Amino acid sequence: MIKPMNTDEARALLAEKRVGRLGCVSDNEPYVVPVSYIVEGDKIYIHSLMGKKIRALRSQPRACLQVDDIRDAWHWRSVIASGHYEEVWDSHERTRILDELFKHFPNLTPVEDVPVHDGQSSVIVFRIRVDHLTGVVEE
Amino acid sequence: MIKPMNTDEARALLAEKRVGRLGCVSDNEPYVVPVSYIVEGDKIYIHSLMGKKIRALRSQPRACLQVDDIRDAWHWRSVIASGHYEEVWDSHERTRILDELFKHFPNLTPVEDVPVHDGQSSVIVFRIRVDHLTGVVEE
Repeated sequence: MIKPMNTDEARALLAEKRVGRLGCVSDNEPYVVPVSYIVEGDKIYIHSLMGKKIRALRSQPRACLQVDDIRDAWHWRSVIASGHYEEVWDSHERTRILDELFKHFPNLTPVEDVPVHDGQSSVIVFRIRVDHLTGVVEE
Repeated sequence: MIKPMNTDEARALLAEKRVGRLGCVSDNEPYVVPVSYIVEGDKIYIHSLMGKKIRALRSQPRACLQVDDIRDAWHWRSVIASGHYEEVWDSHERTRILDELFKHFPNLTPVEDVPVHDGQSSVIVFRIRVDHLTGVVEE
């Protein structure tokens, strides 16, 4: 039976996982890529190389992160966190977040974007400021 | 090292998996939910109860299905299949596809949408007619 989660349950699943699927809108089309993330309060932090995802989010700065735990067809949980996209360029804040991210992820984030070898490959750090969190559970 | 997949490699990953994340655009916002799917040629078939995803896709009939195989941070593959959303209402075709779907999925698809108990819970069968398939691999 599929039931809605309460906010605490949804927050718990989001905090428990480290890989989700980030949705954005690129030229009015949906675009979804796997990402690694960390959560701090109502903010989700992600790092990325420059590419289609960042261009899309700069143009239309709404993002959703979908995170799930699928054991089998009868036992799964899924949450969607929607919010505003903001890049982090303050050097102190950027260093702090990158340190946190690299503690959890020794390698770069899984990204759909292949880096462009033109010297523009610096890492983008961004947050999703979550304003809408929902989840459902089947058990 | 992250490399683009060729089309055959991307098709192979799509055909190998059964669960992906479906992205659509709902009121100009990205929306992503886990779904079970089957592939036939350049068509992806999915069934769903009525809900936010179907309302969004009827309003803006572009969808993407993101499918991945993440072993660890150094070994993962991800594809995105984008295409047009079409519902299947021809009764013969609908029965054939539902039979195929239920062969693979004994339970309903993981959906973010909680069914509304108002007698409108009939299953929607739809396809994504894929017109753009890309993939990347890190290995």
